[in-house]
Amino acid sequence: MLVSALLMSVGINSCLCVLLFTLYSVLRKQPHNYEVFLPRRLAAGTSKRRRNKVARYIPSVRWIWKSWRPSEKDLMDSSGLDGVVFMRMITFSLKVFLFAGIIGTFVLLPVNCFGDQLIQINYADWSANSLDLFSVANLKTRSPWLWVHFGAIYLVTAFVCCLLYLEFRYIGLKRIEHFNSSRAQPQQFTILVRNIPSSDGSSVSETVDRFFTENHFSTYLSHVVIHRTSKLRSIVDNAKKLYKKVKHKKPDAPRVRKTPIVRFFSRKDTPEDHYEKVLHELEQNIRLGQAEVSTPGKEVRAAFVSFKTRYGAAMALHMPQSINPTYWLTEPAPEPHDVHWPFFSASFMQKWLAKIVIVFACLLLTVLFLVPVVLVQGLTNLSALEYFFPFLTLILSMKIVSQIITGYLPSLILQTSLKIVPPIMEFLSSIQGHICHSDIQKSACNKVIWFTIWNVFFATVFSGSAFYKLSVIFDPKEILVKLAVAVPAQASFFIAYVVTTGWTDTLTELFRVVPFMVSYVKRSLEPTDDNELVIPPMRYHRDTPRVLFFGLLGITYFFLAPLILPFILLYFVLAYVIYRNQFINVYEPKYDTGGMFWPMIHYTMIFSLVLMHGIAIGLFALKKMELATYLLVPLPVFTLLFNEFCRKRFMPIFTAYPAEVLTKRDREDQNDPRMSEFYNNLVTAYQDPALLPLRFSGSRNDSLTSPLLSSTSSEV
Amino acid sequence: MLVSALLMSVGINSCLCVLLFTLYSVLRKQPHNYEVFLPRRLAAGTSKRRRNKVARYIPSVRWIWKSWRPSEKDLMDSSGLDGVVFMRMITFSLKVFLFAGIIGTFVLLPVNCFGDQLIQINYADWSANSLDLFSVANLKTRSPWLWVHFGAIYLVTAFVCCLLYLEFRYIGLKRIEHFNSSRAQPQQFTILVRNIPSSDGSSVSETVDRFFTENHFSTYLSHVVIHRTSKLRSIVDNAKKLYKKVKHKKPDAPRVRKTPIVRFFSRKDTPEDHYEKVLHELEQNIRLGQAEVSTPGKEVRAAFVSFKTRYGAAMALHMPQSINPTYWLTEPAPEPHDVHWPFFSASFMQKWLAKIVIVFACLLLTVLFLVPVVLVQGLTNLSALEYFFPFLTLILSMKIVSQIITGYLPSLILQTSLKIVPPIMEFLSSIQGHICHSDIQKSACNKVIWFTIWNVFFATVFSGSAFYKLSVIFDPKEILVKLAVAVPAQASFFIAYVVTTGWTDTLTELFRVVPFMVSYVKRSLEPTDDNELVIPPMRYHRDTPRVLFFGLLGITYFFLAPLILPFILLYFVLAYVIYRNQFINVYEPKYDTGGMFWPMIHYTMIFSLVLMHGIAIGLFALKKMELATYLLVPLPVFTLLFNEFCRKRFMPIFTAYPAEVLTKRDREDQNDPRMSEFYNNLVTAYQDPALLPLRFSGSRNDSLTSPLLSSTSSEV
Repeated sequence: MLVSALLMSVGINSCLCVLLFTLYSVLRKQPHNYEVFLPRRLAAGTSKRRRNKVARYIPSVRWIWKSWRPSEKDLMDSSGLDGVVFMRMITFSLKVFLFAGIIGTFVLLPVNCFGDQLIQINYADWSANSLDLFSVANLKTRSPWLWVHFGAIYLVTAFVCCLLYLEFRYIGLKRIEHFNSSRAQPQQFTILVRNIPSSDGSSVSETVDRFFTENHFSTYLSHVVIHRTSKLRSIVDNAKKLYKKVKHKKPDAPRVRKTPIVRFFSRKDTPEDHYEKVLHELEQNIRLGQAEVSTPGKEVRAAFVSFKTRYGAAMALHMPQSINPTYWLTEPAPEPHDVHWPFFSASFMQKWLAKIVIVFACLLLTVLFLVPVVLVQGLTNLSALEYFFPFLTLILSMKIVSQIITGYLPSLILQTSLKIVPPIMEFLSSIQGHICHSDIQKSACNKVIWFTIWNVFFATVFSGSAFYKLSVIFDPKEILVKLAVAVPAQASFFIAYVVTTGWTDTLTELFRVVPFMVSYVKRSLEPTDDNELVIPPMRYHRDTPRVLFFGLLGITYFFLAPLILPFILLYFVLAYVIYRNQFINVYEPKYDTGGMFWPMIHYTMIFSLVLMHGIAIGLFALKKMELATYLLVPLPVFTLLFNEFCRKRFMPIFTAYPAEVLTKRDREDQNDPRMSEFYNNLVTAYQDPALLPLRFSGSRNDSLTSPLLSSTSSEV
Repeated sequence: MLVSALLMSVGINSCLCVLLFTLYSVLRKQPHNYEVFLPRRLAAGTSKRRRNKVARYIPSVRWIWKSWRPSEKDLMDSSGLDGVVFMRMITFSLKVFLFAGIIGTFVLLPVNCFGDQLIQINYADWSANSLDLFSVANLKTRSPWLWVHFGAIYLVTAFVCCLLYLEFRYIGLKRIEHFNSSRAQPQQFTILVRNIPSSDGSSVSETVDRFFTENHFSTYLSHVVIHRTSKLRSIVDNAKKLYKKVKHKKPDAPRVRKTPIVRFFSRKDTPEDHYEKVLHELEQNIRLGQAEVSTPGKEVRAAFVSFKTRYGAAMALHMPQSINPTYWLTEPAPEPHDVHWPFFSASFMQKWLAKIVIVFACLLLTVLFLVPVVLVQGLTNLSALEYFFPFLTLILSMKIVSQIITGYLPSLILQTSLKIVPPIMEFLSSIQGHICHSDIQKSACNKVIWFTIWNVFFATVFSGSAFYKLSVIFDPKEILVKLAVAVPAQASFFIAYVVTTGWTDTLTELFRVVPFMVSYVKRSLEPTDDNELVIPPMRYHRDTPRVLFFGLLGITYFFLAPLILPFILLYFVLAYVIYRNQFINVYEPKYDTGGMFWPMIHYTMIFSLVLMHGIAIGLFALKKMELATYLLVPLPVFTLLFNEFCRKRFMPIFTAYPAEVLTKRDREDQNDPRMSEFYNNLVTAYQDPALLPLRFSGSRNDSLTSPLLSSTSSEV
């Protein structure tokens, strides 16, 4: 790639950035956009709908300042530990690339530039790929300057590892602190028990009761058996939807002027008493369904079991329960509103097989996804494109077109097709048998991370053909050298990728393009203020892998093509401002995993480091630096040992809270007068919402009357 | 190898067997051999020293019958669950090879024989290797008869998997049963806590006390802090040895007639009061040492913590304790007499690094061990031997010499050098930081298993050169095909190996060659009856890998060279008789792991199956049976899934006892009047023996007075 093409790309994107930042500062001030850009502040009532028409149209940068200001504690209060972890991932990357960027720009870049390998070999060739002048490819074989790179690799690895250690410790402590400062919550006192064995003549509820009174008599409080309610749930959901519709249609709501489009699409006058009748029928159905589902035969062999103390719950959680280890499986209970109720009533075997099937499905998806990746790679080779579509030759020969195509289009196409991956992965995770939404997101996040690394990084690097790539896997001896050849060759693609995809990504995030468009269309169809305000949750499984991938790119390319570093640094600055803004104004946490995303981030960073070491070893071998090659081998070994140490040192905090913390909290609660009320609520906290009594007809307030269902609980 | 050479080998070994069986039946009846052959019965007093001189010299087979008779329950009572697991490994193998043997001998062997591949190709060649006639090599490429082998592989795999499942379940249940029927034992109520954090101004003992009263107040009973006593222990051991010597020398013992050799070696008259003085000094030293060691500064940051109930101990064991997961590490306590006291006071990091170092040491040992293996392989190639040692040509040309060399010598040399491996592995395991002898043995057993498989099986198979072998590891595409070529080529070596090493191994075991010789020399030096009777423990880490290796050989070769099966079956019959005999008469269990050896056995069997599948896939690919090759691929996948299932299904029982079992036992104990006495003993059960008061001088009975040391315990 030519420097000019890169400059073109940078130019387009910088202009776009400035333009969109300005546009955003205006748009967010328009009252009808508050739902899109400031839903949180709207819900909190901190943002008044200003009517000052003049100030609304003047661009400003005050929002950047506002998003910069809040402290980490504020962020913790508003977005939970998960939000803090996400932002710390970005600040962590900022620190790393500030350090690496200084080394890269002021040490490695000049060293690379003063090499003369490429000029010697083939002047014509390098002028076509002038970006390579700044890369390590410009250094001669056995050049003593390569030792500078060697030193830089050790230095950056040490820096990243230190930072990773501190960060892991910090987040671990934050997690404990967060737990200590939280109020008593049902999930702290509850565990989920699965695979309850069937015993003759007694219901699941009785079995659970007997087992826990026998084996954990001092701490057992109550339990809620789970029922098979997927069918019932769909009826309830339908009824709720219908109810909402009817409520909107009620004459007490002021008749709004319909735009012509709405009038065209809306149904002919449907009599309201028809709805009323349907609702009444549905209510009857639901009641019958609830009664049917609550019968003993319809129970899932699983239950939420609550304990009197956190310590008691942890005890039951950690201890193996049954002689047959596939029975009485325990796992921590999620927050009550986080439970993924339609989780299927899988047995031990089914759940395990589902997991295996999902792994295969993910592999399949990864393989199928190579098609768009290979197509995109065709675009960076203009000659290949001309070969396949000869009629394009004329257009492609225009300089500006060819520059746009090589500099901008490939990553745009790749990015668009990548957009569909997170939802697919989320769906796959949801049928894997996770019991709560946060677990589904965690699992999806993990899948998307590896998918992105594999399909964007490796598939692009080994882009010759998909088959060539597969053959490399089976040839481990050669893989490092091949990586060392292939990775630097794609440097220009990835620099362009950072500038285009990276920057636009954050801007799309800022603009919330899809919700913005949806809101616009909706408003033009039905301009009513009655729209319910929906505060979206942050989709961590979509954004975390994206940010992590740029971290991986930065780490692997920092010594190969240091030119990438300023752009990556700029990306992280953008991400910092924009995500903070979004956390404050847009996203509201739906659940709290307690910082469980950090281990994933940590492992991905370690992977990036080891990958970088592998490429470096291959490169030094290629450049015939035997001593440097051998001296580099301990580096990945030590990094992996460091990772293992961190895993042993910090992971236990992330899997369970220690006894020390639990007993402290329990003691604090002993004298709390609110605890008796809490225990009363705890008994019903894990009721399936589909089994709660609903009333639509008659007085129209969908109240939740006291849950008097069969499988409640029994205090010991 | 020629059939005649094999027959020669079988002949020699069969004769040897009969001869030694006869000799054994005579020798064991000699009163002076009772210590070697019947120490257990001697200790139990069930074997009277008969003086009937005539019957003593008549060979009999009654001992075989006697060893056959006892039921599994008897074995459980006398040798513990570990003995039962060992014997079940042998009966398991017997079942497998009876099944495989029937298929092999009556189906596969005739099929192989009627093939005509080898006759067609090269008559001269096969006559030199006539054993190959009975192997799968004798079938032509694409021969439809290969489908018989295909079926046999599926059949045997299914049979082995079913048996493995049943066996794992059976031993898991036995483990629970064993626990249920055992009396209250200290290790059930105790855990070991390591890495106790130092807190300013308070001793380790105080810290432990505070922590457990705070966090496990309802169940905590007492604790014993561990002290750094390695130096003291060596003094105590010396003192004990000296004391024993003095006791023997006392004039009240009748002066025995010294043989000339003893008189030559024994010291000049040493005055007894000199010993007395030395002992007195030592006693002083020990007392000073004990006082010094017991001071707070000399504590190891580890303690045995005892609880009031088994449930309480399990709770503390399973729950993470501290905010810093590297502190307050818990592990189950071993039996008090099983504690490996000199375990070094390693920190979390040290212990972890020690483990890594030991892994590297094992790898190094494995690599170094290739030297004798390659040498042995030289012996099977007579031509190579003649090339290196031309002067041997004349001797080697004698038929009988060459047959002995190819049929007998290689495996004998290999076996002799393999003898040193278990002690080395045991030593390596002992410095790895295990806290008890049984853990050391388990770890050593695991190491020896993989060492044997790698160094005997793979090194022999890829015997061309060590470098060739290494190059194969890096070429996974080719590895299956290369295995399929190399493994059948070594069939004759391994058949000879089974006949020679296998059979002699069991006979050496029966004869206890080394103890027998030692006892003989001792008796001739100092013919006294005062020798203390030492009942040896079974060395599982030496014998389990040996037996397992023959299982691996049988499984991998059953379809390649079915001729091996009768010999393997015979080996297991021998092993069955002999090991049962040894369990009854010789070995006494020193500790009880509760069947913890079975998972290792299970995993080795699974490995053998998968290895066999790999070889089969390679072989079918070689024989150009595409369909059969592809149809075989799911087999290892399913086997591994089966293994994973077993791991999930049964392993938890082997790592910890479930709550169900513990609470049941605790309830039973509640009304037991003996429990208060048990608790009293529990408080001091884990005292370091080096810190117990010893008295040598004065009245000469080495009594253990009440332990009144600083770090005992405090009842809550």
